[in-house]
Amino acid sequence: MNPDISRERENASFNPEILTNILDGGAEKTRRRREIESLVIGDPDFQHEDLNFLSRSERYDAAVRKSAQMILKLREYGISDPEEIYSYKSCVHRGRPEPLDLHLGMFLPTLLNQSSPAQLEAFFMPAWNLEIIGTYAQTEMGHGTHIRGLETTATYDPSTQEFVLNSPTISSIKWWPGGLGKTSNHAVVLAQLYTQGKCHGLHAFITPIRCMKTHMPLPGVVVGDIGPKFGFDEVDNGYLKLENVRIPRENMLMKYAKVEPDGTYVKPPSDKLTYGTMVFIRSMIVGESARALSKSCTIAIRYSAVRHQSELRPGEAEPQILDYQTQQYKLFPLLAAAYAFHFVGQYMSKTYHRISGDINQGVFSELPELHALSAGLKAFTTWVANAGIEVCRMSCGGHGYSRCSSLPDIYVTFTPTCTYEGENTVMMLQTARYLVKSYKQARAGQQLTGIVSYLNEPQSRIQPHSVSSRPTVVNINDLASLVEAYKFRAAKLVEMAAKNLQAELQHSRSNEDAWNNSSIDLVRASDAHCHYVVVKLFAAKLSEIEDTAVHSVLSTLALLYALHGVAQNSGDFLQAGLLSVPQLAQISQRLKGLLSELRPNAVPLVDAFDYRDEMLNSALGRYDGNVYEHMFEWAKRSPLNHTEVHESHHKYLKPLRSKLIMDTVCDHQSQVTVPYEFSRRLNGLISKCHCHQTARGLLLLDLACLKNRPQVSVIKSIPINMNRLTTVASITAASSIYKPTPRKTLTKPSQ
Amino acid sequence: MNPDISRERENASFNPEILTNILDGGAEKTRRRREIESLVIGDPDFQHEDLNFLSRSERYDAAVRKSAQMILKLREYGISDPEEIYSYKSCVHRGRPEPLDLHLGMFLPTLLNQSSPAQLEAFFMPAWNLEIIGTYAQTEMGHGTHIRGLETTATYDPSTQEFVLNSPTISSIKWWPGGLGKTSNHAVVLAQLYTQGKCHGLHAFITPIRCMKTHMPLPGVVVGDIGPKFGFDEVDNGYLKLENVRIPRENMLMKYAKVEPDGTYVKPPSDKLTYGTMVFIRSMIVGESARALSKSCTIAIRYSAVRHQSELRPGEAEPQILDYQTQQYKLFPLLAAAYAFHFVGQYMSKTYHRISGDINQGVFSELPELHALSAGLKAFTTWVANAGIEVCRMSCGGHGYSRCSSLPDIYVTFTPTCTYEGENTVMMLQTARYLVKSYKQARAGQQLTGIVSYLNEPQSRIQPHSVSSRPTVVNINDLASLVEAYKFRAAKLVEMAAKNLQAELQHSRSNEDAWNNSSIDLVRASDAHCHYVVVKLFAAKLSEIEDTAVHSVLSTLALLYALHGVAQNSGDFLQAGLLSVPQLAQISQRLKGLLSELRPNAVPLVDAFDYRDEMLNSALGRYDGNVYEHMFEWAKRSPLNHTEVHESHHKYLKPLRSKLIMDTVCDHQSQVTVPYEFSRRLNGLISKCHCHQTARGLLLLDLACLKNRPQVSVIKSIPINMNRLTTVASITAASSIYKPTPRKTLTKPSQ
Repeated sequence: MNPDISRERENASFNPEILTNILDGGAEKTRRRREIESLVIGDPDFQHEDLNFLSRSERYDAAVRKSAQMILKLREYGISDPEEIYSYKSCVHRGRPEPLDLHLGMFLPTLLNQSSPAQLEAFFMPAWNLEIIGTYAQTEMGHGTHIRGLETTATYDPSTQEFVLNSPTISSIKWWPGGLGKTSNHAVVLAQLYTQGKCHGLHAFITPIRCMKTHMPLPGVVVGDIGPKFGFDEVDNGYLKLENVRIPRENMLMKYAKVEPDGTYVKPPSDKLTYGTMVFIRSMIVGESARALSKSCTIAIRYSAVRHQSELRPGEAEPQILDYQTQQYKLFPLLAAAYAFHFVGQYMSKTYHRISGDINQGVFSELPELHALSAGLKAFTTWVANAGIEVCRMSCGGHGYSRCSSLPDIYVTFTPTCTYEGENTVMMLQTARYLVKSYKQARAGQQLTGIVSYLNEPQSRIQPHSVSSRPTVVNINDLASLVEAYKFRAAKLVEMAAKNLQAELQHSRSNEDAWNNSSIDLVRASDAHCHYVVVKLFAAKLSEIEDTAVHSVLSTLALLYALHGVAQNSGDFLQAGLLSVPQLAQISQRLKGLLSELRPNAVPLVDAFDYRDEMLNSALGRYDGNVYEHMFEWAKRSPLNHTEVHESHHKYLKPLRSKLIMDTVCDHQSQVTVPYEFSRRLNGLISKCHCHQTARGLLLLDLACLKNRPQVSVIKSIPINMNRLTTVASITAASSIYKPTPRKTLTKPSQ
Repeated sequence: MNPDISRERENASFNPEILTNILDGGAEKTRRRREIESLVIGDPDFQHEDLNFLSRSERYDAAVRKSAQMILKLREYGISDPEEIYSYKSCVHRGRPEPLDLHLGMFLPTLLNQSSPAQLEAFFMPAWNLEIIGTYAQTEMGHGTHIRGLETTATYDPSTQEFVLNSPTISSIKWWPGGLGKTSNHAVVLAQLYTQGKCHGLHAFITPIRCMKTHMPLPGVVVGDIGPKFGFDEVDNGYLKLENVRIPRENMLMKYAKVEPDGTYVKPPSDKLTYGTMVFIRSMIVGESARALSKSCTIAIRYSAVRHQSELRPGEAEPQILDYQTQQYKLFPLLAAAYAFHFVGQYMSKTYHRISGDINQGVFSELPELHALSAGLKAFTTWVANAGIEVCRMSCGGHGYSRCSSLPDIYVTFTPTCTYEGENTVMMLQTARYLVKSYKQARAGQQLTGIVSYLNEPQSRIQPHSVSSRPTVVNINDLASLVEAYKFRAAKLVEMAAKNLQAELQHSRSNEDAWNNSSIDLVRASDAHCHYVVVKLFAAKLSEIEDTAVHSVLSTLALLYALHGVAQNSGDFLQAGLLSVPQLAQISQRLKGLLSELRPNAVPLVDAFDYRDEMLNSALGRYDGNVYEHMFEWAKRSPLNHTEVHESHHKYLKPLRSKLIMDTVCDHQSQVTVPYEFSRRLNGLISKCHCHQTARGLLLLDLACLKNRPQVSVIKSIPINMNRLTTVASITAASSIYKPTPRKTLTKPSQ
């Protein structure tokens, strides 16, 4: 154990295990999670070489192997609780996505949700036993956000009772579905249904794409992998082009809508269940933001505790970089955000499950608010986490760029959350739509419930005031007061956005144009609303914490989170008259104080996230702090080190060397040229330096003859010119000294 | 040509060619750059498969091959102008770093700058002809920023007239130098020189590390590749551990300091030349920021012009996503920043070359200011560009994640600039040191010159005022007025930082502690200073533009850049009393107006950057806008598509399938279990469903028997439960329907 990091743990003011239990949702949950992690990590079937050392094909191969093992073992062990399955799977794939994700997470559930009983009978067990491996093919090359714009067609042919599926344009090719490229033999294809000459919009069709025996693509099916991406190396995201592919009528998922044998279309009853699913997935992504950020903070903070650099006090040892205020200012607000998002994730999950009971009863009243909140919080938290991972990475200096830090992998695995399951800006605008609607209702005198009820509060309190003429609203040392400030900021920005939208409506061609012309304001309002919700939920969580030491440290984190957000958005708070100018300076000072307060607990606070070394897979973030030893061991295993001499040495560098030497030797007959910059300075001196016995002699004589001239300053300029030349070009400084052009003949030099 | 993008070009209000010439520094420069690009791109020796499809070893191999060709051809063609070499090299390697970078850009220049004449004779020509391939080994595993802390030792042994080199600790292992891992056979090693029992600090030693004949590591040398990184796949960044490696006395670079044969140390005269080099490199990085950002904007803006999505007006076609205000708000300020940074880069380069003339004459008076400015601007521009590339990438939706967009590669190639050549926060603090010093001089009545002279201006103008009680300073429509506002903001923040530092000095243990405790404020002051310089230089550039149409569009960009910065930092401007609250709302509106004004010129403005398709290498950023066709062609070439059926199918999925089917068939004898969530809801119903004829029958009977119960609402809950289960876990929704545990025997089912 590195003594620096041991000392950090000795100085903790609280017991991290208690905090771990809070994060897990109870001591028993912690115990069981650890049990499952040990089960996987100790299992020889799940061992693998460091994925960073494998090619993409090898990584895909390893992932398929592990997924196959995982399915067998989950059934064997009878692990069936969702959270336990999550722990098991995270551990097997170390938090990475895998090729069967869409089969297990989308194809099977879609079968269950949207099949008629006969379809269940036909498809479910084969899919359950992986005879049928399926994916969910919605997104097309030209269509993502706007699913009504999908172009794939399914045209019913009553003569054969078949649907004929087509990708009519290049932009209609299905693109991105995970597992589509190589793994799946079926896909649920979303397509525009045409029957009896009429389009009935999007429906889902179970479409065989590869032969169940040979796994070769079926006739009319063009399928493959979409190529390498930023991360997701294990997943065969795929493309699918359909050319008159015929499937039986029974392959349209017919639990709700139906096409009868004669082609008659039967409308579905309204269906809000998928709406619920979407809300659920977005809520879960809030938790993913917390996880990605907490992993990154764990790595960066532990590394900062063992890395020493520069001088704080002359003559003393180099300090831990965690002692630099700028380093604390980068990392501690992110640490606070990781905790905040964790608690928000817990809240979202709990709320979803509470509401989903009502949904099952057909009661949807709370769903719109949760829908709006999950959209905005998904965007808010993923944006913060996305940028935060990179701040953590760069706070590790050069070593953060090494794959052994794991930070590049955390980033590329996480960053798609900003886009999938609802592009973030689109999400913010969905939330804004709800906020504007609620604002109008409040204005109309309706009493709002739930989290937007603040829009009912007297508007006078949030009118802009002259900063100097009104009493200060905010007590910057009081979290409750800060929650209020965030609330009024949100109310103010929602009001501004709603008013701007109203003004735009006066002179816009359409409501949509007015909406678009207000969208910057609308996103800003959503962002402020989400920020308020996060601060509020973090504050609310504190009241549940019984342990005083843990309560104390979390309170400091919450205050840091809130004040940091005020400082980052000080314009909004000043604009809304919630803060005075002198308070801003006080906040800066208070923030510095909070960083110092948190400093001794920084390592214990990341320890409490309780990521095993095998899960972090980071040489920098190791629990024992023995960073350098493990970096070195890791590097030695790198594939480029499998041979001492890389073949390129023999193929290119040795032949180049021979060629250059021969050229040089022969060039005494050719003219010497120098770059214009150099020659301009030397005023033709060079032209007096003709060729000499050998090339080496030539060069040295050039230098020597310059040296013997009276222009000593010219000689002095060479290094600068060299640097300029070589740095601009990153190439061959030497070309300014000596350059034969063009070569004529290759003859032996005359002695 | 995609008609959308043609139309964009028809609507340009200016001639992009004129702007291209301005960016290149003249029409002749544009012509010659294009000539060189054609030379490389048409050259069959530089063709290669898409690098995204190659393994790291193959990428390294391809880079070595191309570098070898490049060296031959540069000499053959006689290309020697630094800018031309830069163009040629950029084109060969498409802007990526390569294995010979450090040989050409550091090793050869170091030889030229720091060798004695005898050393030049001995080493230069072999290095010039790549018999000696060298690198520059400074950074150690434990030491980056603080080079005085390097631990490698070179101890002189007068008995053999040799230096003995050692890596005494694991943290002293040389780590990161490019080309060190596999390519180089020599390294300039920075080490602490010990002679006659005394340490004389860092010196440079030419150290053979691999055999010149076999290329195998020499005795006592442990050398290898440091493993995969975030990008830089072509470069063999390496490690080097030295164990009693002996080199002749003559291998210490002795132009300045010397060690005599008896071990007497001769001090160097003071040497400011390397200081100049550092300034130069950082100045160049400002230009790199402009290039990375302009490439990213080119891709994102062209793609946004051909991508259609969602609805602006019901019933009309899906609009170009460039018509969304939020998309413009993401991209146009970055486009403006790309132009701003380009002009700042030109200024830095010009200033450096002007000053370097003085430096050659031993006049260093302007160097400190340029040093401070280059440090801060390096940090300021790389941070903005780094985040900006990612904004561009994410503005392309899902396709931005594909390697075919080139955006991931631009990011990973660029992001190290935030760390190398001076870690950004350290850079900001260097600038702050200069600012604080200048501030104190100004306070002491000294008249400052150069860019910091604003610190002399009357402080009264920048005292905080009550916003409502004073006249507005800024005219938000006037760039000159905005430049003034940035200046006063900078002055204000420098003053605040200096005062905070002063206050800290009262109660700190040391000057260094006080500095550390003020460092957040100091970084903020530097940032404001750099922001001011960028706005000022952008405004200054406008006065040089003669073409009125180009002048007009660049003026709009400059105003956007300035106002966007005010809006992003509105707290500072309010706090400094430079803006009133009502002005903030006006700025928001004005910004929207500027986005609309720029909209028709967006594509022509990125066209003017004049990146050839071969240089961008982006399916999304193609000049012809034919995005989808080229994505599809690219994907088809992906290595995973070289075979129709991936071997993992036969190795893992087929055996798994057989195993699962057999298990299922046999499980009619085992007990049925369900997840707790499900079982809790079903209240023991499940226990009534015993095993049945076949597994398929079992499943369906489960469902069927549930269906026949009065609790219809329970049935309805299945889909939700399924979703919950499968989404939390991303796995096997079906486990809640049917789960045999644990398997006992594998027998054939009884019929």
